[in-house]
Amino acid sequence: MKLLIGNKNYSSWSFRVWLTMKVKEIEFEEDLRPFDVENDYADFFEFSPTGKVPVLQHDGLTVVESLAILEYLAEQFPDKNLWPANPRSRSDARCISHEMHAGFMALRAACPMNMRRKHAAIAVDEAVLKDVRRIETIWSQCLDKSGGPFLFGDYSIADGMYAPIVNRLQIYELSNIDAVASYTQTMTSLTPWQDWDKAARDEPWVIDIDEV
Amino acid sequence: MKLLIGNKNYSSWSFRVWLTMKVKEIEFEEDLRPFDVENDYADFFEFSPTGKVPVLQHDGLTVVESLAILEYLAEQFPDKNLWPANPRSRSDARCISHEMHAGFMALRAACPMNMRRKHAAIAVDEAVLKDVRRIETIWSQCLDKSGGPFLFGDYSIADGMYAPIVNRLQIYELSNIDAVASYTQTMTSLTPWQDWDKAARDEPWVIDIDEV
Repeated sequence: MKLLIGNKNYSSWSFRVWLTMKVKEIEFEEDLRPFDVENDYADFFEFSPTGKVPVLQHDGLTVVESLAILEYLAEQFPDKNLWPANPRSRSDARCISHEMHAGFMALRAACPMNMRRKHAAIAVDEAVLKDVRRIETIWSQCLDKSGGPFLFGDYSIADGMYAPIVNRLQIYELSNIDAVASYTQTMTSLTPWQDWDKAARDEPWVIDIDEV
Repeated sequence: MKLLIGNKNYSSWSFRVWLTMKVKEIEFEEDLRPFDVENDYADFFEFSPTGKVPVLQHDGLTVVESLAILEYLAEQFPDKNLWPANPRSRSDARCISHEMHAGFMALRAACPMNMRRKHAAIAVDEAVLKDVRRIETIWSQCLDKSGGPFLFGDYSIADGMYAPIVNRLQIYELSNIDAVASYTQTMTSLTPWQDWDKAARDEPWVIDIDEV
């Protein structure tokens, strides 16, 4: 099982899958392919039908799209409980994971994930603030209902999907509510989070468009 | 089981779920809420935590996001084979369904679904054409591999996810390859497709921003 990923400092979609596989102790070979912005990621099409990362290669299959990869892993490793075991919680977890996968465009565009960025606020527009408020609501409701420390009690795919948002809210200082603070503490304390963070800081590549 | 949907003429996300439930003969009560563009869909927040449709209400649960609803239904009705039964085909079907859910932004923005629009080409930019070429590739590869008539042989969630694209390629005359023509014929011949189409044509509401 091989996972092809982009730069650890910037590749938020790679981080979602990588973190979840590490936390759930699913063994894989990591293959990091630095973003080649100047060539519009042309070489990514050699291994990815969408030209995007992450890509999971397993048993002759090529699996793309972060949430499709995570669904694939949930089926391959039923004992790992990648989704919450309770069907109602699982439905809730899928709803917010899909909302993340297809949404929050304003926040994603204005505030790129950037592991090594010095924490500092930036000016953001109303659309970004609306995304932040919705995320605050989701996290607060999930943590209230489950009791935490993760969104559905134990770590699930939903936490992986929101991991890059934890980074964004932190580095751009976008929220100061308690639920975000405690959830940020939980997520950033994970050993695999810290491993990824360290590797990101050690990377030589700088992508200007993602340095906001 | 109740499905809340938007205008049949315009609500592409509603169409994905509605069509799949009808084709798979899953019984539900339909509750159509016309888009209130002037009030920025404010009343949708009364029943939808995202302010978006479709919304599935079942057994006290509120399920949002089209693909999360379809995953929920796949779990609730395992005998209906909403996903392909073969695990490798199922993985492929999830990959392209997620690619649809989170992508093709240029095509979606420039070419809204519009069931009653007179077929006529419009000027589109390179980003839209790139989306169209990728969709042509996906459909051609799936139909070649499965033998058709649907993307994975029998109708699956993947067909539901691409249903509004069938409409878009047709009404804006964006493709003339054989795979698109035959797949369009297959999809638009479905009785539920024709039922939805007729209801859309009978709707009184016109949304200017979606009349391109």
